[in-house]
Amino acid sequence: MMKKVQSFPPNRPRSPILTIVAMALALMGGAVLAVDDSGSRTHATGQFDAATNTYTVAAGDDLTTIGRRFGTSVADLKALNALTGDRIIIGQSLTVSEGAAAAPARSDKPQADANADADPLPSWNDGPAKQAIVAFVHTVTDPSNPGYVSELDRIATFDNDGTLWVEHPMYTQLAFALDRIKALAPQHPEWQTTQPFKAVLDNDLDALGAAGKKGLIELVMASHAGMTTSEFEAIVTDWMDKARHPRFDRPYTSLTYQPMQELLAYLRANGFKTFIVSGGGVEFMRPMTEQVYGIPPEQVVGSTIETQYEVQDGKPVLMREAKIDFIDDKTGKPVGINKFIGRRPIAAFGNSAGDREMLEWTAAGDGPRLMMLVFHDDADREYAYGPADGLEDTPFGTFPQDLMDEAKEKGWQVISMKDDWKQVFASNE
Amino acid sequence: MMKKVQSFPPNRPRSPILTIVAMALALMGGAVLAVDDSGSRTHATGQFDAATNTYTVAAGDDLTTIGRRFGTSVADLKALNALTGDRIIIGQSLTVSEGAAAAPARSDKPQADANADADPLPSWNDGPAKQAIVAFVHTVTDPSNPGYVSELDRIATFDNDGTLWVEHPMYTQLAFALDRIKALAPQHPEWQTTQPFKAVLDNDLDALGAAGKKGLIELVMASHAGMTTSEFEAIVTDWMDKARHPRFDRPYTSLTYQPMQELLAYLRANGFKTFIVSGGGVEFMRPMTEQVYGIPPEQVVGSTIETQYEVQDGKPVLMREAKIDFIDDKTGKPVGINKFIGRRPIAAFGNSAGDREMLEWTAAGDGPRLMMLVFHDDADREYAYGPADGLEDTPFGTFPQDLMDEAKEKGWQVISMKDDWKQVFASNE
Repeated sequence: MMKKVQSFPPNRPRSPILTIVAMALALMGGAVLAVDDSGSRTHATGQFDAATNTYTVAAGDDLTTIGRRFGTSVADLKALNALTGDRIIIGQSLTVSEGAAAAPARSDKPQADANADADPLPSWNDGPAKQAIVAFVHTVTDPSNPGYVSELDRIATFDNDGTLWVEHPMYTQLAFALDRIKALAPQHPEWQTTQPFKAVLDNDLDALGAAGKKGLIELVMASHAGMTTSEFEAIVTDWMDKARHPRFDRPYTSLTYQPMQELLAYLRANGFKTFIVSGGGVEFMRPMTEQVYGIPPEQVVGSTIETQYEVQDGKPVLMREAKIDFIDDKTGKPVGINKFIGRRPIAAFGNSAGDREMLEWTAAGDGPRLMMLVFHDDADREYAYGPADGLEDTPFGTFPQDLMDEAKEKGWQVISMKDDWKQVFASNE
Repeated sequence: MMKKVQSFPPNRPRSPILTIVAMALALMGGAVLAVDDSGSRTHATGQFDAATNTYTVAAGDDLTTIGRRFGTSVADLKALNALTGDRIIIGQSLTVSEGAAAAPARSDKPQADANADADPLPSWNDGPAKQAIVAFVHTVTDPSNPGYVSELDRIATFDNDGTLWVEHPMYTQLAFALDRIKALAPQHPEWQTTQPFKAVLDNDLDALGAAGKKGLIELVMASHAGMTTSEFEAIVTDWMDKARHPRFDRPYTSLTYQPMQELLAYLRANGFKTFIVSGGGVEFMRPMTEQVYGIPPEQVVGSTIETQYEVQDGKPVLMREAKIDFIDDKTGKPVGINKFIGRRPIAAFGNSAGDREMLEWTAAGDGPRLMMLVFHDDADREYAYGPADGLEDTPFGTFPQDLMDEAKEKGWQVISMKDDWKQVFASNE
């Protein structure tokens, strides 16, 4: 049904029904992984020497579990120990950022400027995008510059899907939802004969398309609601550990963009507070953002479903209800920024029509502003889709021509993945 | 109609209608201030010497405008300059926390421990409440203690009204709403003959009571909705500057509790991230929390009304709609914590039945926990109300007997304002 994963879908269907068909197509082509509920991630258990601030790697450790123990992101651990990949060996000594009590680490604070002369954006080719970033940061951090911005107002917001990590052949959260339906099917024998679930289980494209938007919402609710928030977090964490991207055969959390990781770190080193503002579900993202991006849960804005406080067996829980609370997309992004962050960003980064209003809202403030859009024009290393500039159309991360025109007219920077990035993914393992 | 402001209301009415009557009573007794829309606060405009990191006070400056310029809280400015009050003089040199670019200040990060031996809680009498705080902080910050908590998980949440600042004779936000109705009345001649507005303008208690809950919501919406978020922020900021508390004749922002300010600073100095979680409107609080508490807008969780993204004259705005989005009170507090913060606090501070579920939710996590309730039992220095322990009942910050019983049963610390606090308010000017 599909020739190459990276060229999916062949011709972008426009109607909602056909969008769902496209989503289903993605499902049929993707490597679907059942969720195994046994086990969950733990903290690293090896020896920590407070005198030397080093941790000795033990069996079963990885950078994620070590980072979790010491409250440090994988990116920071790698930077501290000059690691180029994620591989560590038992017995290896690692410096962890958490040291003496007088100088505790927090990934979201400025870091010591030990490598002031080093290029903070080594994965960016020298070009207008990189130059715009560096010039903007110099302007807002120089107290003698009229464009100087107080550190408290250095707020930068990032879309997630397609801006910080891969979103093709389908949104990662949709892959999760479909996997989850398959994993739950044994407990729901009625799904064998009830649409839209039967369609997912049968990989039946026509039936899934016929279920329409209502059917898609039913699928999302069945996979995302009806459990406590703690249970959902465990399910998501387990899936993130085990699921693999169908083309790259790597965990989704390893398919973040290295240039954007460097940008996040560069901004934070210059006193910015970095936020994710995504259409994705906030509780789908939060279990991984600290470790993967160095962004703590409270700096993640996203779509929410309603939760209900209940006391079960004497213990309070929050039940996830099958009801949408807030959609953080398009005009919802400025609304979400105002609701969750409470002030206007001075820099915003996106990649699709869903980010247009966030960039407009950011641009409308006074003083220096930086608005950038990642354009996926690199089918060899990642994907190429638009439909802007004649690239293939897609329902996932659509970048329409009028957004490209608006960016050019308003001076927003468009980042060409092909031309501006030396390296795409954060890790090559 | 009222004998003493601090003993309001004489006998707490129980029905919703009578609660509104009580609110109206407060209005009649309070010094109602019309809002003047002319002018708004500015940043300080004096000289800053980057070499010595000092600012020279200019005419018209106060600590708030200086703090705003340098992104520093009033509390931090006072600490940096060893000021005991808010008074500064023209020509005075002040150290501002924002210094060299390599070490920028952020009020929410740990501060250099210059006074390690000083008592971090000097306004607290030595007693079980203070001892519980110090013991808890020692436990969670000592890496050799089994109760050690990674810095990233050191989340502390504070109710605002009655926990961080005064809430009698009525919630500050209600005083704002009623003042706002009076200020808007000239533009709404129909209010002279339409309830519930006529009741407010006439100080007509019976009519206001008869308008019921629906009438109260109409008042809140008329005073809080129908403008852009930027306009609302300007209105609130202006009101906060000019309004005076009816008993203490001081700005509401100067009526924060000094012991709680010290507690906020002590927790932050020990790696905690501090949040406000209040039933109050989030956009009513955010304009002042950074300056008054050192808590940035994104760490303020509260009730919200819906906003709508619109483009007016080519400029995007967020319009405040006359529709409740979320009530951050009672069971809404754990819901709001989960939605906005995304992880469970290890310490929570409140003062009323509205905080019960927040404390239960905090207590239900694993590891060391600290749950505390401020009990207003000090009519001489502030107010005394319950109805717990036989104190007067009140519709504002009700502390019922069953909450007192639950606190005792579960080991939550009850802070006696009278016995535990040497000083109540943060400033004596």
